[in-house]
Amino acid sequence: MKAVVKRRRAPGGEIATVPDPVPRAGEVLVRVRASSVCGTDVHIWQWNRWAESRLRRLPLVVGHELSGEVVRVGDGVRGLAPGDHVSAETHIVDGTCYQCRTGKMHICENVEVLGVDRDGVFAEYAVLPALNAWKNDPALDPAIASVQEPLGNAVHALLPEDSVEDLAGKQVLVTGCGPIGLLAIAAARTFGAEKIVATEVNPLRLDLARAMGVDRVFNPLEEREGLAGRIREELSGRGADVALEMSGRPESLALAFEALTPGGRVSLLGLFDRSASLDVDSAIVFRAARVHGIFGRRMFETWYQVKSLLARPAFREKVLAIITHRLPIPEIARAMELIESQQAAKVSLEARW
Amino acid sequence: MKAVVKRRRAPGGEIATVPDPVPRAGEVLVRVRASSVCGTDVHIWQWNRWAESRLRRLPLVVGHELSGEVVRVGDGVRGLAPGDHVSAETHIVDGTCYQCRTGKMHICENVEVLGVDRDGVFAEYAVLPALNAWKNDPALDPAIASVQEPLGNAVHALLPEDSVEDLAGKQVLVTGCGPIGLLAIAAARTFGAEKIVATEVNPLRLDLARAMGVDRVFNPLEEREGLAGRIREELSGRGADVALEMSGRPESLALAFEALTPGGRVSLLGLFDRSASLDVDSAIVFRAARVHGIFGRRMFETWYQVKSLLARPAFREKVLAIITHRLPIPEIARAMELIESQQAAKVSLEARW
Amino acid sequence: MKAVVKRRRAPGGEIATVPDPVPRAGEVLVRVRASSVCGTDVHIWQWNRWAESRLRRLPLVVGHELSGEVVRVGDGVRGLAPGDHVSAETHIVDGTCYQCRTGKMHICENVEVLGVDRDGVFAEYAVLPALNAWKNDPALDPAIASVQEPLGNAVHALLPEDSVEDLAGKQVLVTGCGPIGLLAIAAARTFGAEKIVATEVNPLRLDLARAMGVDRVFNPLEEREGLAGRIREELSGRGADVALEMSGRPESLALAFEALTPGGRVSLLGLFDRSASLDVDSAIVFRAARVHGIFGRRMFETWYQVKSLLARPAFREKVLAIITHRLPIPEIARAMELIESQQAAKVSLEARW
Amino acid sequence: MKAVVKRRRAPGGEIATVPDPVPRAGEVLVRVRASSVCGTDVHIWQWNRWAESRLRRLPLVVGHELSGEVVRVGDGVRGLAPGDHVSAETHIVDGTCYQCRTGKMHICENVEVLGVDRDGVFAEYAVLPALNAWKNDPALDPAIASVQEPLGNAVHALLPEDSVEDLAGKQVLVTGCGPIGLLAIAAARTFGAEKIVATEVNPLRLDLARAMGVDRVFNPLEEREGLAGRIREELSGRGADVALEMSGRPESLALAFEALTPGGRVSLLGLFDRSASLDVDSAIVFRAARVHGIFGRRMFETWYQVKSLLARPAFREKVLAIITHRLPIPEIARAMELIESQQAAKVSLEARW
Repeated sequence: MKAVVKRRRAPGGEIATVPDPVPRAGEVLVRVRASSVCGTDVHIWQWNRWAESRLRRLPLVVGHELSGEVVRVGDGVRGLAPGDHVSAETHIVDGTCYQCRTGKMHICENVEVLGVDRDGVFAEYAVLPALNAWKNDPALDPAIASVQEPLGNAVHALLPEDSVEDLAGKQVLVTGCGPIGLLAIAAARTFGAEKIVATEVNPLRLDLARAMGVDRVFNPLEEREGLAGRIREELSGRGADVALEMSGRPESLALAFEALTPGGRVSLLGLFDRSASLDVDSAIVFRAARVHGIFGRRMFETWYQVKSLLARPAFREKVLAIITHRLPIPEIARAMELIESQQAAKVSLEARW
Repeated sequence: MKAVVKRRRAPGGEIATVPDPVPRAGEVLVRVRASSVCGTDVHIWQWNRWAESRLRRLPLVVGHELSGEVVRVGDGVRGLAPGDHVSAETHIVDGTCYQCRTGKMHICENVEVLGVDRDGVFAEYAVLPALNAWKNDPALDPAIASVQEPLGNAVHALLPEDSVEDLAGKQVLVTGCGPIGLLAIAAARTFGAEKIVATEVNPLRLDLARAMGVDRVFNPLEEREGLAGRIREELSGRGADVALEMSGRPESLALAFEALTPGGRVSLLGLFDRSASLDVDSAIVFRAARVHGIFGRRMFETWYQVKSLLARPAFREKVLAIITHRLPIPEIARAMELIESQQAAKVSLEARW
Repeated sequence: MKAVVKRRRAPGGEIATVPDPVPRAGEVLVRVRASSVCGTDVHIWQWNRWAESRLRRLPLVVGHELSGEVVRVGDGVRGLAPGDHVSAETHIVDGTCYQCRTGKMHICENVEVLGVDRDGVFAEYAVLPALNAWKNDPALDPAIASVQEPLGNAVHALLPEDSVEDLAGKQVLVTGCGPIGLLAIAAARTFGAEKIVATEVNPLRLDLARAMGVDRVFNPLEEREGLAGRIREELSGRGADVALEMSGRPESLALAFEALTPGGRVSLLGLFDRSASLDVDSAIVFRAARVHGIFGRRMFETWYQVKSLLARPAFREKVLAIITHRLPIPEIARAMELIESQQAAKVSLEARW
Repeated sequence: MKAVVKRRRAPGGEIATVPDPVPRAGEVLVRVRASSVCGTDVHIWQWNRWAESRLRRLPLVVGHELSGEVVRVGDGVRGLAPGDHVSAETHIVDGTCYQCRTGKMHICENVEVLGVDRDGVFAEYAVLPALNAWKNDPALDPAIASVQEPLGNAVHALLPEDSVEDLAGKQVLVTGCGPIGLLAIAAARTFGAEKIVATEVNPLRLDLARAMGVDRVFNPLEEREGLAGRIREELSGRGADVALEMSGRPESLALAFEALTPGGRVSLLGLFDRSASLDVDSAIVFRAARVHGIFGRRMFETWYQVKSLLARPAFREKVLAIITHRLPIPEIARAMELIESQQAAKVSLEARW
């Protein structure tokens, strides 16, 4: 089959022909209908420091966001059959560690990631464990179905555990309006948040934030001084109940806490690449803040919440607005350029070879 | 001042002139702008078994739902001043019991209720503790401001504790579409529930349930057999994640559990007047159901959630739709008739004497 | 192999020779070292109404509480090897339903129960899914290892969800001191409960309750009037924060609520066999009670808590005290007699054929 | 009356005669029986950077930990009377802010602190709001009663919210064994933690940690390399479920996260005095850690938990072991020396003038 393959520990990748994958017991073979490009894919393409330290096995078929159709099931697979439309949960778990045995399999101690630790989905076919195949409504647009993972990240950041306070009537701050930040704004709106403010510098994303239903978006380049104060003012004077840090910028990390109401909570999803400095006393201790590190999505509580969002036509329209470009998978290099130059929000890849 | 007064332990009441109330330390005096009629008021008017056993002190100014304006504050009152628009939280707490000292003051062991244990608000003026005065946006329609207590009941039933699962993506069943059930439908819709079904027999309420945004409403008189099955079918086959029993009918109590998904939760707000029989094994134990008894509203977590709902114009329209009648307070007898004959949903009382 | 087999839909059972079981993919074969008798086994032996309606497949090897040694593993089994000491989680789940996909697999909609829906463990060998095999410390007494399931029921009743309040400093009431009630007393003591009271009528169990560390145990036969009041008095006057109903007696159900502090919680584990009548208004609604139906044990959060209890020598001593009788498995009929006549608390069965 | 008074914005303090305080409405006057020295008192005595920036009002009677007897009550005080034995909750709240109105009054936005913002308790008499007076068992040793606030800090760090997972069967790490860290070890033991490890460098505190019941204590000066690994190894290989950072040292902050199991939680109570640098990606995001900033104690959920600890004779013995010195209040300068030179753990002050 055709696939996007990473062969060398250096920037770039290539379109190549590789053997068709074969599902083993407990696995399914999926014909890829659509995929999409995640920040992780960009890091691997660029071959940055994280990729150099993280990737162990080359050559590798890259990519992990997926919408496709089951074409074969391995031995012992229950509940899935050829013809089923599915997306992939990328975290492949061992099922036996403490985390897996206590309802937290998304942070399995021995997790393997599709397109990072084993062959991914920028290809004609992909193999994944039946556990990781999420059944879609066959009528769902494949381009939308493929972005359920980043949408899941957004929802998981909003609702990291069952026991956090409901978003109903809460004031939300999102720092950083990349695709996940944008989806978080749209989801918070749908889940009953009272007021949503965001920060972003890129003009395309600023416009998209408004389309997602943000109440007010600030450009930190234009309002350096006193930004936390202005955000608190916008939020009834009391500040954010829930802050989502999605930019990976140290200044935004500080801002997320400064704009937080005492006792509020912060979800950290953005990556900082190196140590971030924080005034722990005032940011966390005196403010009695709660912080949640966000990794992946709950398997599969979050997916049910995502499904409920995608059942709403108005929400699907918002997802489509974020997909600024559609290209065939073989034009992956062009997709990477669009994202690196910040001309694109989300790039959808179609299975046209 | 003029007031609706209950003098005798018998049905009815009268319009009378009573001394103006005077606020003591920690209390505020409020000029009533609007009130509204609650089921409790009807029971006291009818003088049913509950009223006979519960009311200790007559004569009594009745009524407790309120929108008004502060005209005087007692010694030591902070944060409130003449001119402030307020509504009343009816539960007057002692502040010293275990419940009050552990974040559950709405179920204070020594609670006193406005219009039940002390003089209420169907009057020109009312006195309440400053703690119980909730500040309103002055622009809020007094008729809407007055129904925040039942709206609070509805929201509290949906979200009885901070730590219950978010409504986001959840399937909700409401048995009984009186004013509180109707408001619960509207609130669940706004707070991100995926699907909402309800049961009701009264044609007026059936229509109002649809106006609130219910997905499907069943009339148990017309679909006696297999109703739980049909509700489960309507709810993805898995049944309700959250069921609110708001009818006080034993058959609905059984139905709420039968239509529940294993591990789901049921909020009980309706009163059954006498022992209700329940197959505890299948309803609760084997189904691993969770049940929350709903009394009052959280003080004041729920009020903030109510405020966020009322900040939305579309939600205010729904509240107005439920207020089917507006009468001057002195026409209280007529209001009672409308409610008892089920011609009215919510009756608003205006302060025209 | 030898096994205790139920062949007819009538009281009793027999020791018979049946084919050795063979583990399929994902399963393990276990040599039974010890077992123990659960109430469910008694119902099946007696062939009561529940057994008649619930059991579909005969002949059946009965029994489900187990301590044994893995002797063979099927294809694809990870993390288990011959020689491992294991106990069985009896609930065999499908892994694909909503409950299984959202961290609640112990209430799987398609659960099968060992010794009820498929062959159980009163035998020389038993087969179970690898997922259901819980690894034990090899040094653990097999008689103790075998009672982890009822101990898990007890712990699950105390801590039904991660998000319930900690037992630290809480006042606990246990109605009914069968083996699970007794284990709940011991566990509550170890987990930091402040005060524990219980009710029981059987003299043997009354003594054992004291050995478990209960602060006070009441015999409802001797103190019919005002028992709830005396319990509340014993519990600082405010009543129980946590009540566990483990007797299946309707009077105890009412008592559990009457002795509860407003806002407290009740776990229901005892079965009532027929509809139980309850004054829902005063028991649940006005008291703002929370109720948890307890079925099985959390897989496997509860098992980790059980493991931590069994790591304590003093706790293991308490478990041994509850095991009042030890018999070889073939003397199952005698074991049943001891339990039915309430001469025994827990009967341990040794694998001596 | 006699009191320890801070008159100048400089190190030290003095014993002086000041006017007797008079309780206003809602306040009580307490005769001090015992007090104790908190780290905050040391900072004010030393007049460090925090004290310089935080204290606004001098002269000031300092000190806040208290055990005493009510001698007079102001107007409107309910539930307290002369002769009652009380301790003080130091956080004096406004009762009207968002935090106060939503069950989080311990982080009131307008909090005033006894001995910091208003006159404290190193004196013959002290005045405090009735809300802040916690009634003690009259038989409780005043020296023990006085340290309920730091014990409350310890318990609050262990159980920051009702909805966090129970400590039952959990593995706990405490970095830093000052008085609060020591009390946290003792409390974790009582509340059912499975295993407790700690870090500390001071020999006196190392010994006391063992007396509190720690399973293993590490001296980071002696085991610099690979300490996180050794702690994880000690904790079943999976690491800490709950880590309490109580040292205020940046290396311990990093350690607390490195030794944490994925999905575990960290309570931050120690103060870092300046920005602490943290590798947010690996410490929090990839580990899906949860962090709780700990400020004060829950009012008054934590106090009830403290009360339950102090009801146990064995726990009271542990508290007494931490009180390494007892001095009359006028010897405050000597107390400060003992603490600054790390010769003392907790210093109790007796009301001998």
